[in-house]
Amino acid sequence: MIDVQSLIDHRNIHVDKVGVKNIRYPLTVMDKKNGVQHTVASINMYVNLPREFKGTHMSRFVEILNEFYGHLDIREFSKILEAMQSRLNAQSAHLEISFPYFIEKLSPVTGTSGLMEYLCRVSGSLNNQNGFDLVVEVNVPITTVCPCSREISEHGAHNQRGMARLAVRFKKFIWIEDLIRIVEEAASCEVYSLLKRPDEKFVTEKGYDNPKFVEDVVRDVAYRLKKNPHILWFQVDVENFESIHNHSAYAFIERAL
Amino acid sequence: MIDVQSLIDHRNIHVDKVGVKNIRYPLTVMDKKNGVQHTVASINMYVNLPREFKGTHMSRFVEILNEFYGHLDIREFSKILEAMQSRLNAQSAHLEISFPYFIEKLSPVTGTSGLMEYLCRVSGSLNNQNGFDLVVEVNVPITTVCPCSREISEHGAHNQRGMARLAVRFKKFIWIEDLIRIVEEAASCEVYSLLKRPDEKFVTEKGYDNPKFVEDVVRDVAYRLKKNPHILWFQVDVENFESIHNHSAYAFIERAL
Amino acid sequence: MIDVQSLIDHRNIHVDKVGVKNIRYPLTVMDKKNGVQHTVASINMYVNLPREFKGTHMSRFVEILNEFYGHLDIREFSKILEAMQSRLNAQSAHLEISFPYFIEKLSPVTGTSGLMEYLCRVSGSLNNQNGFDLVVEVNVPITTVCPCSREISEHGAHNQRGMARLAVRFKKFIWIEDLIRIVEEAASCEVYSLLKRPDEKFVTEKGYDNPKFVEDVVRDVAYRLKKNPHILWFQVDVENFESIHNHSAYAFIERAL
Amino acid sequence: MIDVQSLIDHRNIHVDKVGVKNIRYPLTVMDKKNGVQHTVASINMYVNLPREFKGTHMSRFVEILNEFYGHLDIREFSKILEAMQSRLNAQSAHLEISFPYFIEKLSPVTGTSGLMEYLCRVSGSLNNQNGFDLVVEVNVPITTVCPCSREISEHGAHNQRGMARLAVRFKKFIWIEDLIRIVEEAASCEVYSLLKRPDEKFVTEKGYDNPKFVEDVVRDVAYRLKKNPHILWFQVDVENFESIHNHSAYAFIERAL
Repeated sequence: MIDVQSLIDHRNIHVDKVGVKNIRYPLTVMDKKNGVQHTVASINMYVNLPREFKGTHMSRFVEILNEFYGHLDIREFSKILEAMQSRLNAQSAHLEISFPYFIEKLSPVTGTSGLMEYLCRVSGSLNNQNGFDLVVEVNVPITTVCPCSREISEHGAHNQRGMARLAVRFKKFIWIEDLIRIVEEAASCEVYSLLKRPDEKFVTEKGYDNPKFVEDVVRDVAYRLKKNPHILWFQVDVENFESIHNHSAYAFIERAL
Repeated sequence: MIDVQSLIDHRNIHVDKVGVKNIRYPLTVMDKKNGVQHTVASINMYVNLPREFKGTHMSRFVEILNEFYGHLDIREFSKILEAMQSRLNAQSAHLEISFPYFIEKLSPVTGTSGLMEYLCRVSGSLNNQNGFDLVVEVNVPITTVCPCSREISEHGAHNQRGMARLAVRFKKFIWIEDLIRIVEEAASCEVYSLLKRPDEKFVTEKGYDNPKFVEDVVRDVAYRLKKNPHILWFQVDVENFESIHNHSAYAFIERAL
Repeated sequence: MIDVQSLIDHRNIHVDKVGVKNIRYPLTVMDKKNGVQHTVASINMYVNLPREFKGTHMSRFVEILNEFYGHLDIREFSKILEAMQSRLNAQSAHLEISFPYFIEKLSPVTGTSGLMEYLCRVSGSLNNQNGFDLVVEVNVPITTVCPCSREISEHGAHNQRGMARLAVRFKKFIWIEDLIRIVEEAASCEVYSLLKRPDEKFVTEKGYDNPKFVEDVVRDVAYRLKKNPHILWFQVDVENFESIHNHSAYAFIERAL
Repeated sequence: MIDVQSLIDHRNIHVDKVGVKNIRYPLTVMDKKNGVQHTVASINMYVNLPREFKGTHMSRFVEILNEFYGHLDIREFSKILEAMQSRLNAQSAHLEISFPYFIEKLSPVTGTSGLMEYLCRVSGSLNNQNGFDLVVEVNVPITTVCPCSREISEHGAHNQRGMARLAVRFKKFIWIEDLIRIVEEAASCEVYSLLKRPDEKFVTEKGYDNPKFVEDVVRDVAYRLKKNPHILWFQVDVENFESIHNHSAYAFIERAL
């Protein structure tokens, strides 16, 4: 059969990224406490396409994934990129893997165990000129209590769930668990899956004693990261699903260190 | 050209609903205060298909919409159903129209004007046997303050945005605005798009003085509707995007009156 | 501490469902070929709340899940419902579990292995009056080729991805794999994750030789199920993401057998 | 009342963006054919926050929108940015407005009129150092027919709906309608909301005669834009919702001209 994709293209236009998007796949992730964790990933895989070729070979992306089946592991990240670059004869390869990650967390007073889910994303590229680049991202639900509302009100203060996103480039490996801790410690209070009454009293009072704007949360995360010698770059943002509005409050900081 | 859809089908199976889904269309809605309001709708249109025909004629659904273009108005609801029934030779026709609806609302202390968006849905059917059926639904963002958290904590109380959904069948026309009021009055506090500092103090304190579980909100809506002689049936549910958890609290009541 | 939820309620209104929604949790599912499969679930858990009580105890739902942690298994479905009913002193309990499920599938000509993901949902209730009710649902991506387009065109025929949903109640256990097969066999052609060129030729020609409207797909599924003595009830619908429109074609059949 | 937001902050960290997200608002957009068009927008508004201030004043963003109410018009874009910069004492302001836009389109053979919806986005910033920056984006549903499938198959060719996104910076104003045309002309065939049988025959055959990979579509758009002297920069991507797979094919090109 004719290989249409390998035909010569005359438009003389290089394609930056071409590949497959939203492939769903079982994934194994390193777990700081338990060794490994089984989860389910959404995967994007792209390579560049030089000006002279008509098309890439889409089935090869899935073939590469399949070769890692049963041991598709986040630690294989750079191997997958290398396989993409070599099997598709590409100068650059891009891989994005998003997955839910579970951490057991004890409630703050009664010590009751619960499972928290955090959406994570590992994305990276391998490039003949620039080498290997990796970004690790965690999405962390938090509680925020409004400092203004607390200050002006005789009792109570509006508070809400927020979603904080932290993405980093690093010199030395950092556990997902440690990135999540940095974000949770910057919140008015962290979020739990299971709270008994003494725990609920604790988190309510802790939040009230620790009010934070979205601006405060991104600054406190930035403050911690700027002092961490292993971090090369970060982005942090927080979106507050305001309890008194139907829109969100939002803050964002990006720094190369 | 051959009309494939009109061929005889031999499987002898009646299809309950067949048609078009997620058509987007400009829509005019009656506005209690301003006469009419321009918005954008997502529309589903289905008819039944008798056992003897192979297929329905999908393009006719869009043709019917187009005949109402420029004056596609929620008041034409039953006319559209009649047109569907007649043009597609159907025994039953189903129409679902979802749209954002805006209401100007004054903040509670400073009287500052803001625009609130409410997602609404009008769905109905026309049936040779059962006649005309209509359901009007409003989705109303609210604030809920947790009664348990307030009771057990020395200061503060966790609170959050919730989304309440109310759907009704009625004997006598009810304004969308009036359905929304019933829901907002059942909340710990209603939600605004614009609050200045004295307003923020007011809503914080009002919510704190008026704590409600999801169970309380659906019951208070149900209590009001059961006393309304114009209501034939209702469904109400509330989903609380808990500020202390990453899951929701939920309550639901359905009643035929 | 005072138990606010157990206070007496004077509105005299029974709440049909109250509980927790969108809890994410690791799940083990029976796998027809491999024994078990690890996946990640979204879970809703509700009970009824009698008129005399102010609120339910939300943390108990999560506690029940936690007791099944490490062996939360779809086979435990009725045990979880029983635990909900007993621990929350309820007359009725409702449980809804949605999860991605993976099946290895060989391509039709070269026999190349690939992994297909199917979103599944098991939902059920336990009720003092009506006993145990269980519904199993599969969502199956399919290819549909338009019979009208094929008939009237000199070459080619528009085709597209569709999503078919099949939900059943049964007398005798049915594997998820078998429900999926019934749907895939009713399509113009089934969908694969990995196709080499001879496979792509095969699926293109098979689809072209086997054109189907959405009406045909739901009828062919219904035809099969009506002859299956183990099925008590089913719902099947298909949504075609039309390649020539920006809206969907849709068909739906529901039958109690 | 104390103005908490204006307190001095000692962390010494500048916040890049802070503001409100996902505000929904009625919007008027210039319409090439009809003068203006009423639609509904989702709006994000951010400013920078200097290191010395604790917080921004969130209510002022909504106040600015309200001042444009009744005449909130995409032509006011730079005025809104100026108001944000001045009212919030900011060095930089960012505004993102997304909205559905409708265009009447005639079917290719019978000339039957239908309404197509295109999601559009206008985003921009005003910065004391870099001045004014504006990006206009259109999302255009298209049909793509696979060249490989067509070549290797005896009859038929798999095809599907794709979504093409084109974002541009320009020297001279370009109508949304003209950007959409550029994309539609690069597809195997454009998408319509209403097609009668002779139209369906036409689009089926036109697509079959004009097969395109995602790579071809982004290249053909790029080819056209590179020759347009008014374009300063563009991004174009296409996502194909493959009819034979449950994942997407994707291609992306970005160029500064």
